[in-house]
Amino acid sequence: MNVPEIVLAAMRQTNEVFNSEVVMKQDTGRLDRVYTANARVLPPGAPMIEGRDKIKEFWREAIAGLGLKSAKLETVEAEVAGETVVEIGKADLELGSGQVMTAKYVVHWKREDGHWKWHVDIWNPNS
Amino acid sequence: MNVPEIVLAAMRQTNEVFNSEVVMKQDTGRLDRVYTANARVLPPGAPMIEGRDKIKEFWREAIAGLGLKSAKLETVEAEVAGETVVEIGKADLELGSGQVMTAKYVVHWKREDGHWKWHVDIWNPNS
Repeated sequence: MNVPEIVLAAMRQTNEVFNSEVVMKQDTGRLDRVYTANARVLPPGAPMIEGRDKIKEFWREAIAGLGLKSAKLETVEAEVAGETVVEIGKADLELGSGQVMTAKYVVHWKREDGHWKWHVDIWNPNS
Repeated sequence: MNVPEIVLAAMRQTNEVFNSEVVMKQDTGRLDRVYTANARVLPPGAPMIEGRDKIKEFWREAIAGLGLKSAKLETVEAEVAGETVVEIGKADLELGSGQVMTAKYVVHWKREDGHWKWHVDIWNPNS
């Protein structure tokens, strides 16, 4: 089932918090707004990470390590699954070197505390 | 919501078709039993692949290229999402060299033609 526009707009809002606050301002405290309390992150080259404290630590190190300047996220396909959404997306990651790395991702979205958030987050590079 | 045991068993059956028929016997025709008709595969290092014909081509090349001998898949977490299931799993991929590569994956499962199948399939290596 297609995702209603009002939900897609709420998803874009969450993605924008990730880009403009977490990445661009390096405010990892705002990951509370992005991930559910017991979210899972599955990053390439590392084991699965569980829970927001460890997710904050992961992004603190990843943003600093890559010199990540921005993370532009775009929905490619999204589908309603019960009270959740499964999304396939495209990420353009601007690195400190000026290089842009393109990745694709799958996010399982859930509504928590009135916001749509990332509950499961996995990605890999396109090349 | 937890996934009923009867569904978990059906998922294991699909995973076993992938391992013992597609990979071990190199019978990519059996991917009809594994993937939904309009499934998406998001492999590391390549763009997204859409539809079963292209998925068959991808696995034919990947199995030959890696010398893939077996792919043992294990559910780590699975959650009901409407009439679908979102699964986090672990894959042990036995390569031609004898090396075992461990990957983690997310699969969005759907029921099609009486079987539980992979509708969205994304993975990345643990190290």
